[in-house]
Amino acid sequence: MDGLGDIPSREHPATPLEAARTPHLDELAREASLGRLLPVGPGITPGSGPGHLALFGYDPIGVQIGRGVLEAVGLDMKLEAGDVAARGNFCTLDPSGIVTDRRAGRIETEKTRVLCARIQTECERLDGVKVVIQPGMSHRFAIVFRGKGLSDEVTDMDPQKEGRAIPPARPLAAGAARTARAANLFSRRVQALLKGESRANAALLRGFSKRPDLPSLTDRFRLKAACVASYPMYRGLARLLGMEILDVTPGGLDGQCVALDRNRDRYTFFYFHWKATDQAGEDGNFEAKVRAIETLDGALPRILEWKPDVVAVTGDHSSPVPLKAHSWHPVPALIWSRWGGGDGQGRFSERTCNSGSLGIFAMKDLMPLLLANALKLKKFGA
Amino acid sequence: MDGLGDIPSREHPATPLEAARTPHLDELAREASLGRLLPVGPGITPGSGPGHLALFGYDPIGVQIGRGVLEAVGLDMKLEAGDVAARGNFCTLDPSGIVTDRRAGRIETEKTRVLCARIQTECERLDGVKVVIQPGMSHRFAIVFRGKGLSDEVTDMDPQKEGRAIPPARPLAAGAARTARAANLFSRRVQALLKGESRANAALLRGFSKRPDLPSLTDRFRLKAACVASYPMYRGLARLLGMEILDVTPGGLDGQCVALDRNRDRYTFFYFHWKATDQAGEDGNFEAKVRAIETLDGALPRILEWKPDVVAVTGDHSSPVPLKAHSWHPVPALIWSRWGGGDGQGRFSERTCNSGSLGIFAMKDLMPLLLANALKLKKFGA
Repeated sequence: MDGLGDIPSREHPATPLEAARTPHLDELAREASLGRLLPVGPGITPGSGPGHLALFGYDPIGVQIGRGVLEAVGLDMKLEAGDVAARGNFCTLDPSGIVTDRRAGRIETEKTRVLCARIQTECERLDGVKVVIQPGMSHRFAIVFRGKGLSDEVTDMDPQKEGRAIPPARPLAAGAARTARAANLFSRRVQALLKGESRANAALLRGFSKRPDLPSLTDRFRLKAACVASYPMYRGLARLLGMEILDVTPGGLDGQCVALDRNRDRYTFFYFHWKATDQAGEDGNFEAKVRAIETLDGALPRILEWKPDVVAVTGDHSSPVPLKAHSWHPVPALIWSRWGGGDGQGRFSERTCNSGSLGIFAMKDLMPLLLANALKLKKFGA
Repeated sequence: MDGLGDIPSREHPATPLEAARTPHLDELAREASLGRLLPVGPGITPGSGPGHLALFGYDPIGVQIGRGVLEAVGLDMKLEAGDVAARGNFCTLDPSGIVTDRRAGRIETEKTRVLCARIQTECERLDGVKVVIQPGMSHRFAIVFRGKGLSDEVTDMDPQKEGRAIPPARPLAAGAARTARAANLFSRRVQALLKGESRANAALLRGFSKRPDLPSLTDRFRLKAACVASYPMYRGLARLLGMEILDVTPGGLDGQCVALDRNRDRYTFFYFHWKATDQAGEDGNFEAKVRAIETLDGALPRILEWKPDVVAVTGDHSSPVPLKAHSWHPVPALIWSRWGGGDGQGRFSERTCNSGSLGIFAMKDLMPLLLANALKLKKFGA
């Protein structure tokens, strides 16, 4: 449950997890061990990238994944070694070149598709650098620069605020001039092509980054892992870690449950992602977060119908309703297995997790615990 | 209490520590601070070596003690710098050289003594390498190779399964050829000598290792430490850390209590080892583990009669009854001292320790806490 953790407030003295009716989580909790996970470190608020990396046992400080790479792989783009990816937004420029809307009035996804196709035809190569673009949701797209000698040490082409011009890409390292030149060429070419458009007449690029060279979950833990997620970014991140991405058509929780059910014998690890909790937290919507938790709880019997050996319920970070944003608060976590040792709590909540047998510990240590609970780890030393 | 930690199960919803009647531990607990110790790290199940190293404040990952060394020092063999020790098993070979019983029908200890004496006479030196062997319990013995230029980087001479031949020792490093040759010579000599034996007609050697160069407890903590343990391996480990080994004749808890009482003014630190809890856990015997805990509890007034300044009660790892093996679960721990700050719990159990003031922390940090409770540590910084 993305952004699961929360905090009480004067308005809501019980957190969403405490307020929610969660009979199935409660049943799990009775035989589970509880604790709280620190995604990165005390006081550090993680983005989705570090949070998920830590959940899957990677050091979220040592391994950093750029926003461009996340976006590109989330849109099913294949990244080759040396490619530089960036995240793109269509935006609106006034005649003097000032950004008046960083999201181009949030144009429809279909419109973005048409524009991207047009741009792709005219921008196959820029100064010898191959360009691949892929439309995303609404006004978003991803772009990949491919060629020899490209670097991701390039500044963002995004003023971050309306009322300013698009800053050109600047190289931050000796070898980055070629990439900056291609990005600036792209920007000018897009503006020339979209001159007639009223809303989407330019593009902002940010998060220039290269695919990190990571060992997969199979390399590290000998797990055959599958991702059951609807949102592109989480699918992309899972792919970077070597998970296979399951088709969740027709989407939503139901699509995810069907995908899990169809594939349950083909993998030894499932990452099941539920986005609604984070959305509600970021919207500051207490009732929606309670509902999101209750909806997931209602689906739990289906998700667990195949009786996995080990179940972990947690989140990649907290997104407290009062903060309307990601936060540093440790995330409640539950591990259920035959060998886990139940803490005997009848509820799964921030407070019950505070006194669980798992303690408050680094999120990246969750995976070793899950493997231990699956009896997949050998004894250390004689 | 070796292997103290445990987990609840459906059959036994209370752990052995929770089920046991422990009036004396409870009394300690009322004024003690509680917590749980992670021997090596989350999810990592330790052998007895790493568990004890951590208990005594050594980094169990950085300091690794080979099985051969543990076995040899446990049998009171003196290890010199450069010696290579290995653990030996008598085994049964069929006429074609296939291992049919890796434990030679678990021959009697007395028989092993006779065979070892015979072998020792015929194997004083092999290719210039001095050989010392020492019989252990049942079919087990320890062997020490002594000479210049020996290395422990030699593969085990143990097929691990019946139905295979004994693999020869192979050098794993440039300087290990001499050791491998001596080990292989030993193996052939033993087979020639024991040709007439029906059960013990060959030997398996494994865990080739050298004595690690460790600072003693006196070097590190200025403690004059004594070991009050009946079992060879724990005595051996304590000796490696510079403890003096007390004579516990006639053995058992009573022998240990007498040894402690006789020596209580001569040391500043006692390691009192109680094995029965681990044995019961490994046997999956719930009632025996409860009894083992109650027996130790009953002896507590005698053990603590001399009123030590600081008392710690814990284990080197968990050995949960449902798992019948060592496990990764954090070990309940109690520290009693005048300055500890009592948590006010009236019970010492996994669950009360979950919410103790010590938290869940690395086992290697227990020693600094004990020293602090003895007011033996100076303030850090101005």
